Amino acid sequence: MFQTFAVTTSPDAGPARLTKLRETMRAAQVDGFLIPRADAHFGETVAARSERLAWLTGFTGSAGFCAALLDTAGVFVDGRYTLQVRSQIDLDSFTPVPSNDVKLSDWLIEALPNGGVVAYDPWLHSFDAIEKLETTVASNDITLKKTGNLIDDIWDDRPAAPKGKVHPHAIEFSGETSESKRQKIGAKLATQDLSAAVLTLPDSIAWLLNIRGTDISNTPVALCFAILHANGVVDLFVDADKCDDTLRAHLGATVTLHAEGDFATKLAAMNGNTAVDRDTAPVAISDLLQNPVWAPDPCIQPKACKNPIEIAGSRAAHIRDAAAMAEFLCWLGSAVTSGTLTEIDVVQRLEVFRRNTNALKDISFETICGSGPNGAIVHYRVDENSNRTIQTGETLLVDSGGQYEDGTTDITRTIAVGEVPNDAKRANTMVLKGMIAITQARWPIGLAGRDLDGFARQALWQAGMDYDHGTGHGVGAYLGVHEGPQGIARRSTCPLEVGMIVSNEPGHYKAGSYGIRIENLLVVTPASIPEGGDREMLGFETLTYVPIDRDLIQVDLLTIDERNWLNAYHAEVFEKVGELVSADTLVWLKSACAPI
Amino acid sequence: MFQTFAVTTSPDAGPARLTKLRETMRAAQVDGFLIPRADAHFGETVAARSERLAWLTGFTGSAGFCAALLDTAGVFVDGRYTLQVRSQIDLDSFTPVPSNDVKLSDWLIEALPNGGVVAYDPWLHSFDAIEKLETTVASNDITLKKTGNLIDDIWDDRPAAPKGKVHPHAIEFSGETSESKRQKIGAKLATQDLSAAVLTLPDSIAWLLNIRGTDISNTPVALCFAILHANGVVDLFVDADKCDDTLRAHLGATVTLHAEGDFATKLAAMNGNTAVDRDTAPVAISDLLQNPVWAPDPCIQPKACKNPIEIAGSRAAHIRDAAAMAEFLCWLGSAVTSGTLTEIDVVQRLEVFRRNTNALKDISFETICGSGPNGAIVHYRVDENSNRTIQTGETLLVDSGGQYEDGTTDITRTIAVGEVPNDAKRANTMVLKGMIAITQARWPIGLAGRDLDGFARQALWQAGMDYDHGTGHGVGAYLGVHEGPQGIARRSTCPLEVGMIVSNEPGHYKAGSYGIRIENLLVVTPASIPEGGDREMLGFETLTYVPIDRDLIQVDLLTIDERNWLNAYHAEVFEKVGELVSADTLVWLKSACAPI
Repeated sequence: MFQTFAVTTSPDAGPARLTKLRETMRAAQVDGFLIPRADAHFGETVAARSERLAWLTGFTGSAGFCAALLDTAGVFVDGRYTLQVRSQIDLDSFTPVPSNDVKLSDWLIEALPNGGVVAYDPWLHSFDAIEKLETTVASNDITLKKTGNLIDDIWDDRPAAPKGKVHPHAIEFSGETSESKRQKIGAKLATQDLSAAVLTLPDSIAWLLNIRGTDISNTPVALCFAILHANGVVDLFVDADKCDDTLRAHLGATVTLHAEGDFATKLAAMNGNTAVDRDTAPVAISDLLQNPVWAPDPCIQPKACKNPIEIAGSRAAHIRDAAAMAEFLCWLGSAVTSGTLTEIDVVQRLEVFRRNTNALKDISFETICGSGPNGAIVHYRVDENSNRTIQTGETLLVDSGGQYEDGTTDITRTIAVGEVPNDAKRANTMVLKGMIAITQARWPIGLAGRDLDGFARQALWQAGMDYDHGTGHGVGAYLGVHEGPQGIARRSTCPLEVGMIVSNEPGHYKAGSYGIRIENLLVVTPASIPEGGDREMLGFETLTYVPIDRDLIQVDLLTIDERNWLNAYHAEVFEKVGELVSADTLVWLKSACAPI
Repeated sequence: MFQTFAVTTSPDAGPARLTKLRETMRAAQVDGFLIPRADAHFGETVAARSERLAWLTGFTGSAGFCAALLDTAGVFVDGRYTLQVRSQIDLDSFTPVPSNDVKLSDWLIEALPNGGVVAYDPWLHSFDAIEKLETTVASNDITLKKTGNLIDDIWDDRPAAPKGKVHPHAIEFSGETSESKRQKIGAKLATQDLSAAVLTLPDSIAWLLNIRGTDISNTPVALCFAILHANGVVDLFVDADKCDDTLRAHLGATVTLHAEGDFATKLAAMNGNTAVDRDTAPVAISDLLQNPVWAPDPCIQPKACKNPIEIAGSRAAHIRDAAAMAEFLCWLGSAVTSGTLTEIDVVQRLEVFRRNTNALKDISFETICGSGPNGAIVHYRVDENSNRTIQTGETLLVDSGGQYEDGTTDITRTIAVGEVPNDAKRANTMVLKGMIAITQARWPIGLAGRDLDGFARQALWQAGMDYDHGTGHGVGAYLGVHEGPQGIARRSTCPLEVGMIVSNEPGHYKAGSYGIRIENLLVVTPASIPEGGDREMLGFETLTYVPIDRDLIQVDLLTIDERNWLNAYHAEVFEKVGELVSADTLVWLKSACAPI
């Protein structure tokens, strides 16, 4: 099983660890230390050895940080984790702080005397974040100080770094050789008078070198650093134990392997203008460089625009995944009637159906499986404590995805278990209307996800409802299930371009009652110009083909267009997926795809 | 008549004037001089004495500037004026430059040698504009130099400054005393450690002091400057000839009148922290101040959010204006059948209908009246050269508005003259769908016009069409017909707030054939929460009640909801306006408002 459910948090150890940390702080003559949930690669998942926040505080959420001072310690979490953090930390030693409302700078100014000194590990914070913090606290004479990591000093049994094997990512999946990518980006660096770019994001390096790794769960990357020179040559800093001869042959002569420990020395020796990303690279890197020049990671944009081979791969991965989902939904429909099925049962069984494809490399994130009130917790992850039996009359929200060599999937379906209340059906229909509006959107070249976001919400807004998350995030090609810069959200101001994959997942949540979300992945394509049209437009092609629960739709709320879309979609689901499923599932699929 | 149609441009005088300007430039030892179409108040309309750009080049558009160098002179205009500029300037002496494509900085770098010096009048450019320009040309060692105005030195018969009377704006229209406004804003300045704010925008001063002026056409403001002190006291710099005892009594003891010529001296003498707007104030002002602090003009935001009295006034002004529009449309319907009616006839007659209300203070902008192909020129203003006879089978686009003491109106209707081509009807219906979508929009508090803009375009986009202007602009209360910061456009990122008035005017333009636009004004209101809704929302109340041409609608393209909206709207038009119109017009109105 990729997903586990054990409760790993140990808040009881927190107070003693905090006391020890404060001794270290005193010895270092600082008044505070910042503990983010981050490693030097700023990804969503970190290796066990980088779970410093959880180790210190007990809080295991995917985002947050602790500001430990000599007499107080704030654990900053966003709205998703307000409840979870209170159940995971020792509230006598740690104070939860809502990061949406309270800025760290204001909190430090409030908590520290003028002249206070706050230490941080420069490998765990970006230049941008530190600069912003430094500027705002300077008014109160509070200074930031780079130190070693004070947690590492006291974490005796800290896990070792992962040694996951690094593999070539075949050209049949990547669609472009690493040589070609490196030549293009190198040439672009040269035109900007840059001799090299430092790469710190593992998915950028994976994309550039056509390699994949196994260091962390859910995202098939190797934790490593790289320097791309303007001539296309790369220095790759990666643990040699992760690399075998096949990999070395794949990388070829223009990629030089170095020990990770040599990275700092190499940076310090570079004397040309060197691009470094002020948002995504640790501040330690620009400190080491002689001539740092701020520039966005040059792989982010081309990586986001998938080439035709990657798109074809993604289509194939999605159909394979859809067949597994169909088997799962067919099984669920009958299994859930027993009245004994739990959320964990569902998550485990879904993973089995995906494994049965014999192509699953990993799940692309921990499955969200929320029944009834648990569905209303937007980033809910079931564990042994929260697990509950699914009751008839409830909705069940299942948000999951798979990593396949040809593509990454992410799909949410919400299922009616028996006869559900009318308000849930109505809300699900409003959500479906929004999801259809995005799917059918057509827009002039140059617009961003922000400009489309309202289409997903229009029906909900009319009903006085909304949801407090973006409509969609970018998705990688056998890489991160969350990928920038594209997205469909109020903060997504990057123009959508052909080949970008985004999720389309409006929702609605009624606290204590139900959660609803419907999610398909889409790829941006040129749109056909209808007769009478006079300009070029972009649109979406749907990648996900899995039935949307007809029992959760209030049909009279749909327009004729929306009904037509749903029926055509289901017909396509049956056509594409029907031949890949078992006989039982085929029967189920036929009825799940029947017109409404 | 407020509107005139004479062709005033005299391009033949341009070359000699340019030669003279160059002599002045040589004498001043500079290589260039910038001539914007601006006075120190940066409004849309300027007094005759500030029409330096038209005087020098012959170009009379409402936006643009000339960069005159010793051997070339670029006239920068945006897409609206590409054709007009070529017909108005001497192309041997002046070169049109498309300002959307070519930045002034790039053009200067291309045209000037390293070390070049470009002069400008610091009263006609904002700090922000100058700083941006200075930074970009610095790379090529080009510098900017403040000088007096070199045009004024050679413009012998330059018109005198206008001496329009300044009047009190009664509390029954303003809804809040100037004292109250000044106390509130003054208190806010104090909390920001500011002792005063410099006000340079005539509509800000008009709003703050509850005064209106008659210096320029279309916008009822006085050209003047003011300093608002944190204690609510105001220094007003205005020509004494514009003020009578009634005005002095209205302003009261806490507003001190000064000659305009004393403004600079007073600025130089101020020693506290003084707020000045880097975007809207001339750079000369911050140069004069001892302690300038950048802050947005503090009147802009409260002025934009109309109070209940202003909204009630606007409703009344719109119904009055709607009755005049109904009389006009009824007249037009029969007059146009003669086959001899010209665009100028239409503009003049519309103004007469508005004057017949006995309440018209001015038109709020020069009426846009474009028949057939002229309708496709988005900012078309008919003059004696462009005037054409309206033909049957064409569309006629009429965009116009009035200034009344209780409110400012702005309305566009597009009329089918006889039987128009199907593509125009279809486009008009798509535009109507967008206009209805904005009218019916409901959205969570905090969103900006940008987040709604797509609703106006969704139907057009689906049809492969769009329009190259914003969907809506802010509108003042007996002030500017274009007002910030609110709007509905891709660049409108300011949150919409209760009381803001915006236009809703999607369109579609087929070059050489037709132009279509439908425009109502809307005011932002709290929206009712429908049953089952769980959050507060904002919405719009419609202010404009004038029939939308039923003959230009392809009914089968409307949804049932859209048809219902249109029929309910027309029923309301009839109910609100019917009792105010003549017997003939009432007959016409009844049929124009009949359900479809």
